[in-house]
Amino acid sequence: MDAIDVIVTKRDGRELSVEQIDWVIDAYTKGVVADEQMSSLAMAILLNGMTRREIGEWTQAMIRSGARMDWSALPGRTTDKHSTGGVGDKITLPLAPLVAACGGYVPQLSGRGLGHTGGTLDKLESIPGWRASLSNQEMLDVLGEAGAVICAAGDGLAPADKKLYALRDVTGTVESIPLIASSIMSKKIAEGTGALVLDVKVGSGAFMKTVERARELATTMVELGTDAGVETVALLTAMDRPLGRAVGNALEVAESVEVLAGGGPDDVVELTVRLAREMLQAAGLSGGKDPEQALKDGSAMDVWRRMISAQGGDPDALLPKAAETLEITAPSSGVLAGLDAYGVGLAAWRLGAGRERKEDPVSFGAGIMLHARPGDLVREGQPLMTLHADETSRFERALAALEGAYVIGETADPGLLPLVIDRITA
Amino acid sequence: MDAIDVIVTKRDGRELSVEQIDWVIDAYTKGVVADEQMSSLAMAILLNGMTRREIGEWTQAMIRSGARMDWSALPGRTTDKHSTGGVGDKITLPLAPLVAACGGYVPQLSGRGLGHTGGTLDKLESIPGWRASLSNQEMLDVLGEAGAVICAAGDGLAPADKKLYALRDVTGTVESIPLIASSIMSKKIAEGTGALVLDVKVGSGAFMKTVERARELATTMVELGTDAGVETVALLTAMDRPLGRAVGNALEVAESVEVLAGGGPDDVVELTVRLAREMLQAAGLSGGKDPEQALKDGSAMDVWRRMISAQGGDPDALLPKAAETLEITAPSSGVLAGLDAYGVGLAAWRLGAGRERKEDPVSFGAGIMLHARPGDLVREGQPLMTLHADETSRFERALAALEGAYVIGETADPGLLPLVIDRITA
Repeated sequence: MDAIDVIVTKRDGRELSVEQIDWVIDAYTKGVVADEQMSSLAMAILLNGMTRREIGEWTQAMIRSGARMDWSALPGRTTDKHSTGGVGDKITLPLAPLVAACGGYVPQLSGRGLGHTGGTLDKLESIPGWRASLSNQEMLDVLGEAGAVICAAGDGLAPADKKLYALRDVTGTVESIPLIASSIMSKKIAEGTGALVLDVKVGSGAFMKTVERARELATTMVELGTDAGVETVALLTAMDRPLGRAVGNALEVAESVEVLAGGGPDDVVELTVRLAREMLQAAGLSGGKDPEQALKDGSAMDVWRRMISAQGGDPDALLPKAAETLEITAPSSGVLAGLDAYGVGLAAWRLGAGRERKEDPVSFGAGIMLHARPGDLVREGQPLMTLHADETSRFERALAALEGAYVIGETADPGLLPLVIDRITA
Repeated sequence: MDAIDVIVTKRDGRELSVEQIDWVIDAYTKGVVADEQMSSLAMAILLNGMTRREIGEWTQAMIRSGARMDWSALPGRTTDKHSTGGVGDKITLPLAPLVAACGGYVPQLSGRGLGHTGGTLDKLESIPGWRASLSNQEMLDVLGEAGAVICAAGDGLAPADKKLYALRDVTGTVESIPLIASSIMSKKIAEGTGALVLDVKVGSGAFMKTVERARELATTMVELGTDAGVETVALLTAMDRPLGRAVGNALEVAESVEVLAGGGPDDVVELTVRLAREMLQAAGLSGGKDPEQALKDGSAMDVWRRMISAQGGDPDALLPKAAETLEITAPSSGVLAGLDAYGVGLAAWRLGAGRERKEDPVSFGAGIMLHARPGDLVREGQPLMTLHADETSRFERALAALEGAYVIGETADPGLLPLVIDRITA
């Protein structure tokens, strides 16, 4: 087997054999296939595509490059969610304890933010004392005790994907649906969940800008999960505007606690409940307590407190606050026609909620609180949003990102996406 | 400017700007753009193509990465030839002195062989004492003294091309017409010739297997040369069978000397004379001595002897001979219908005439002498060819390469290409 043969096969538009796929992933992980060879193969895959069989085998080869977790010691079924990422997307925080309160076990491996979308681990780390890194045994202990765990994926899961993702990031080969789908699914399948619900975001604040591309990615991932024996379903959901009212680490934790306390913004509650029902159904656990009930009776909040405490966090501690705020008011009266997710995400990032390079710290208190959402009536001078940052010097670039991101008109933008756009099953 | 922007532009099928091209070639030469970024860009170029403007700017950027030679001190016009390489293609050896004998100055920078096609420098190095490496001043001295020089290109010409070619070689990105054309032409334009004739070979023994691909490459190179102010013309010539009767380093030198002495195989003589006329015409030197005359009257041989001597070679020395020979005879009587150039080239390579890795030495005496050519009548038992090697152990693998490479039938293969298939001008 030879790297050039594999590259030329895909370059010339032919299908890779299972032997070629297994060899190239293994040889790349070991450093036998060089970065410059893998990047030209990645570009050929991006431009010429892969069949369902190839994507499945590519994913399996990445899983085999590392360890696979096993939850058979738990007394119940596992079910998990993955979101492709968005602005204000804190859903994992209330969702994991909510599903646990209704009878599922949720082993949620999460990541950190890079770019304008936040990361679940960054959000939770704003809770004093909370630890993201757990050993496998600690994970099992927290799961057994609380029913849900949210923590960092160890280095052992799909190391080939980790290496390939870093390479794609610098070689213009990120935007390939086969490579995105196999990257996500190799980690989720290796994580060992029995059921999986994918929240594929669509719109300016999401990785997939159009419903068409999002549907293609969702379908590919559902096929991959199904072929690997994981009960998988996907929702396409709106990310043309931010989710909820809070964007930023500690601000989103506070909003999540509000939801767990039975309140919170409608869209966050609706999506959390919908995803919880999907996760329970996919795991064959629909007969138990209904998620709406678990939010009202405090049982989801109980799980949250157990889960945070089990990972060293103090659920009653005050959350970090940014030192400075700046209010933006409505320049005229009318209806807030639209609120661009990308603009808001970029502004929050520039306020300090996100990082520019992997090694940068985030500001836990930084971000944006939205006081009006698309479709709301606003009066001139009324507060539209409040920016939070540790230094006033950050406001200028954040304001630049928000220019044109909100429009006051006569009606809401008729092009706004429904919260749940579609549901994709095998 | 950013490597990912450049890659994404080409990946998404858009044209690269002159600023992007200049930046990426310069940054790659300096190591700012990494190999894995250049290889994904090369794959995107291979699959999405480049326009005539982009190819021209890419070529100019590669020329600017190094030095450009200048022959204005010579009392006459320069004219050069480049062949895309084939089996038994020794044409440069008689051609350069022949053109000089007719009034042109020929500054021929050549390369070494890799794979089944031979390299002009390897052939000339079989002449005892001959040196391939000359300084610029030595080159000018030999040119002034003999009218022709054949030597190695220094490291100073188009170093970006050298680096990029080595990368393409291991990343499955060799077969891109824009990249092949700009690689060849950046070196030829930097070499500073005023006129250039391209011999683009077509057939199993050539890099271009079809007339269509060869025409595309030839047209691209003629456009590049013309746009750069070099009078450029291309011939498409046959490489479905070997050229001449000798394949191998010293064997081809001997055949070249035969041609310079007024003899030699018809096809070698015909192509040498045709290319000489094209080179003279392109340089505006058609009015002088005719090449056929210069072969007959010994003036081309005189230039050859001066040129070889000026580079330390002894034109009268005995050429190296391989220690072992093996004769292949006709298995039946009939007409030699075809003689596959690739099979013969591969066999000669395995006999030791070529190298497997860049750092390997070649055997000067190894190769094949052909005793019959396509269309010749042969009788059962008559010698078809003689294999030459330093060790008998090499014969077995060479015979395997020749299996099916020659067919005895009732007539010559009607699909054989004419020696000169087409002529391409701007």
